Amino acid sequence: AGSDAYLRPETCQNIFVDFMRIYETMRGKLPLAIAQFGKSFRNEISPRQGLLRMREFYQAEIEVFFNPNRANEFPKAEAVMDYALRLQPVGEDKPLEVSCREALDRGLVSSKLIAYYLALIQQFYEKAGIPRSRIRLRELDPDEKAFYAVEAWDLEVETSLGWIELVACNNRGDHDLGGHQKASGHEMEVLDGSERVLPHVFELSMGVDRSIYCILESSLATSNGKTVLKLPPYLAPIDVAVLPLISKEPLTSKAREIYDALKLEFDAVYDESGSIGRRYVRYDEVGVPVCVTVDHQSLEDDSVTVRFRDTAHQLRIDLKEVAGFIRGYLAYP
Amino acid sequence: AGSDAYLRPETCQNIFVDFMRIYETMRGKLPLAIAQFGKSFRNEISPRQGLLRMREFYQAEIEVFFNPNRANEFPKAEAVMDYALRLQPVGEDKPLEVSCREALDRGLVSSKLIAYYLALIQQFYEKAGIPRSRIRLRELDPDEKAFYAVEAWDLEVETSLGWIELVACNNRGDHDLGGHQKASGHEMEVLDGSERVLPHVFELSMGVDRSIYCILESSLATSNGKTVLKLPPYLAPIDVAVLPLISKEPLTSKAREIYDALKLEFDAVYDESGSIGRRYVRYDEVGVPVCVTVDHQSLEDDSVTVRFRDTAHQLRIDLKEVAGFIRGYLAYP
Repeated sequence: AGSDAYLRPETCQNIFVDFMRIYETMRGKLPLAIAQFGKSFRNEISPRQGLLRMREFYQAEIEVFFNPNRANEFPKAEAVMDYALRLQPVGEDKPLEVSCREALDRGLVSSKLIAYYLALIQQFYEKAGIPRSRIRLRELDPDEKAFYAVEAWDLEVETSLGWIELVACNNRGDHDLGGHQKASGHEMEVLDGSERVLPHVFELSMGVDRSIYCILESSLATSNGKTVLKLPPYLAPIDVAVLPLISKEPLTSKAREIYDALKLEFDAVYDESGSIGRRYVRYDEVGVPVCVTVDHQSLEDDSVTVRFRDTAHQLRIDLKEVAGFIRGYLAYP
Repeated sequence: AGSDAYLRPETCQNIFVDFMRIYETMRGKLPLAIAQFGKSFRNEISPRQGLLRMREFYQAEIEVFFNPNRANEFPKAEAVMDYALRLQPVGEDKPLEVSCREALDRGLVSSKLIAYYLALIQQFYEKAGIPRSRIRLRELDPDEKAFYAVEAWDLEVETSLGWIELVACNNRGDHDLGGHQKASGHEMEVLDGSERVLPHVFELSMGVDRSIYCILESSLATSNGKTVLKLPPYLAPIDVAVLPLISKEPLTSKAREIYDALKLEFDAVYDESGSIGRRYVRYDEVGVPVCVTVDHQSLEDDSVTVRFRDTAHQLRIDLKEVAGFIRGYLAYP
């Protein structure tokens, strides 16, 4: 009543304020990454384009706290040194394909730690089904960068609406911990080995809703005039549909029994309504990666048909291998 | 600016407004249950007792839409007819143990459908580790019931702070769909078989934060002076800790390799710091149900030790069986 209230414009400030407590709970080691997911708010003058530009949206932020003097001592980075980043440095008008190693050698990226996280975020979207040719990491020039950024890359994805920024990757230097330390008088320096250091922060700030939009747009396909949502299997909201070939006993009981077993581990649906062809179309459309069909042979030899959404290919498989097969097929790539 | 804003006091009204659209999308069959999870707000005069009484809290609501003339035609209920509900009807001063069948025969519960959902919610908390002796379904008398409730049961759990209401189970009759139909002029009746009917609603409205409080309180135990968080394995936030017996090569490499494989499927942590005994205590305290320990024998015969949080019992197990074993141990009961 009569008091002003503010909605947060980013999820990260809590992380900086909580840093010292989390650092101690995690038993004090740098680098340390803290992630947060939640709603953020922005005063968009003209909210538009559905999920792309909203006043209230979901944001996921990862803040990586590191010792700036040791940002090149990062063994995890070895695994991605040959991975090709799609970097578009300031001055280039299209992305270059350069390995992390080359990006470091040429001084395009400031450290192994940052090269590693750029590789990780690019891989994340590739694994989500976005073709690499439609992904770029665009370096922001000094005019575009936030005032606190030492180094800034935007991960962008090309869609039917042009290039969309999905993740802002900012090397925030000591701006945040330094600022909180100064304002609060609370010590934010920590011991890294024998060195006393104010950690620097590399931030990955992801727009969640617009990422979902881009993943959906790139997954939507048409095959023989029918819509197929070709989501990578691990991303599909429904893992498997269990379908009796026809809606008759004992096929339906057998199919229900298989469904009851699979639903303990998977997001499964059971469906006996309509022709088998219509049901396949229905589950292709909502992106279910595999259907398990129970037919007369199933009653005789305990085998089922596994049918793949993307190819309509069918495979005969022993019932006791079905769960293991689906588990493997749905694994994170 | 100058306009009044309201925070929602329950998550369910969206469900009623959306009912017709969801009903059609789900291809039109009663009964139909719709669930929603989110924040709700209440003007608590004195917020207190931590998670138990807050102004902003998480609520999960399940609205079951059913044909009141067919609430006893509910085949799913057969599976729970012998299950003993802990009912405390109006007039009783402590809970009675009565099977669903008996509760129906004695007219304590109005239909099979409602008996089924009461059984389901009681089972939910039992599976979450709350002893059944500390659970009751207390019938509200006319003075306590919400004005819209035809029949109301509160699921309550006994804690160190007394009996806490976790779930309000309300037969809301046709109050909601009838009300929305009247106010909006939009038809809310649907066809159930050949019968035109305004669905009735049975609601389970769950306080999420306070449920977590009760589960934590009932899981917290002391064993030989050490704290052990005996969460049911399927609820543990960390599934498994992978520990080399000592922090030396090649044990650490072997353990990391096992960790890298397990983390694809499980929430796993790797830890080599401190004595093995101290690490066990550390993971018991945060409720990790099993630790996998890699020792010298592991290097020779590819076996590991699986150590159980609740008993400190240890089991030698072949490496290739570890994932399957953990999967089974963590399965929803």
